[in-house]
Amino acid sequence: MADMWCVCFDCEGVLVGEAWLELQKKTGLEGLKLTTKDEPDYDKLMMHRIKILRENGVKLDDMKQVVETMEPLEGAVETISWLYPYCPRIIILTDTFQNYAQPLFNKLGQCTVFCHAVAVDSDGYIEKHVLRLKDQKRKSVEALKGLNFKTVAIGDSYNDISMLKAADKGILFRPGQKVLEDFPEFPVVWDHAALRELLAEIMNLPKPVTNGQ
Amino acid sequence: MADMWCVCFDCEGVLVGEAWLELQKKTGLEGLKLTTKDEPDYDKLMMHRIKILRENGVKLDDMKQVVETMEPLEGAVETISWLYPYCPRIIILTDTFQNYAQPLFNKLGQCTVFCHAVAVDSDGYIEKHVLRLKDQKRKSVEALKGLNFKTVAIGDSYNDISMLKAADKGILFRPGQKVLEDFPEFPVVWDHAALRELLAEIMNLPKPVTNGQ
Repeated sequence: MADMWCVCFDCEGVLVGEAWLELQKKTGLEGLKLTTKDEPDYDKLMMHRIKILRENGVKLDDMKQVVETMEPLEGAVETISWLYPYCPRIIILTDTFQNYAQPLFNKLGQCTVFCHAVAVDSDGYIEKHVLRLKDQKRKSVEALKGLNFKTVAIGDSYNDISMLKAADKGILFRPGQKVLEDFPEFPVVWDHAALRELLAEIMNLPKPVTNGQ
Repeated sequence: MADMWCVCFDCEGVLVGEAWLELQKKTGLEGLKLTTKDEPDYDKLMMHRIKILRENGVKLDDMKQVVETMEPLEGAVETISWLYPYCPRIIILTDTFQNYAQPLFNKLGQCTVFCHAVAVDSDGYIEKHVLRLKDQKRKSVEALKGLNFKTVAIGDSYNDISMLKAADKGILFRPGQKVLEDFPEFPVVWDHAALRELLAEIMNLPKPVTNGQ
């Protein structure tokens, strides 16, 4: 049998922008400028964010409203709609939280999304985040391989590297300079048109016809 | 964390009609009247079908054209579009073959599909079918549970029972009389409106508003 592929996309930075940065811009809250670049401990970072939101009266619904104004990255929807008729297995593997990211998932079509969730208190504030599964990106790719799929994974950041390594083929999409230097073993693309070309090559699909991105 | 669900649908008989029965109707070929009810050995049945197609000059492309005329079952697309914003994890687990079933998958949106494939010879005839993974429906549900998801599985037929048993909740959708009698332990629904109501109850979702199916 010809290989049957699963394509695993990271979400923020690959298909959509960064929700917390968008919230920072919309609210102007200085405290939300802290990112994984400043605070490598994700748990600490999330607790910091949750504290800032509560101190400033920003509830989950406010955050959802901000996320609802966000649009997928240029070319992302085109990549999904080009790919699906060849490979009806597009899985978004993301460490984001369904409670506020769902509006973005809706804009990407009906792709399957493996993610996490936050707990919300009775006043509507985010109370805490709970990871559904630690290192879920890597474990999901391994589970898919166990089901006899070949896997491609596309990510941009440190938290994608274990999934890129686990996959049959890993691709860096518009990575930061440091990720780029630390992991020279992965092919790199800088936009969705180039990503489609590379996926077509890897999966032996007809060359995509594209207008710009 | 609240439970994070994956919903696993069988395809033919639940979301769409039976492709081989449709091909039988369109071609009038008597030999294609044989189904799993007459021939329980699926390998034998498929080899029989493949032989009939070749003897009668029916190529893969002809079969695809027939499948392209098929539409999802009444209410199926509505079920998916109602469910997705609550649960962006809809996975179709089917023993059908991507080579000719893809047009139907496209009509169901961009749901992830775990299926099999056929090999095609240089003349365009189906040469053989190759299962990607034996008992893949059950194994997929088990893999999803291993990734810390709760699972609901919906099927109509004997080849769905192992996945219904493996899932946290199994549902029979419009089953045959014998399946119904053999497996009284599963709740039964007869249309998509009722399926949506039952899913909402199981997954603790707002009651669906529906017009007919």
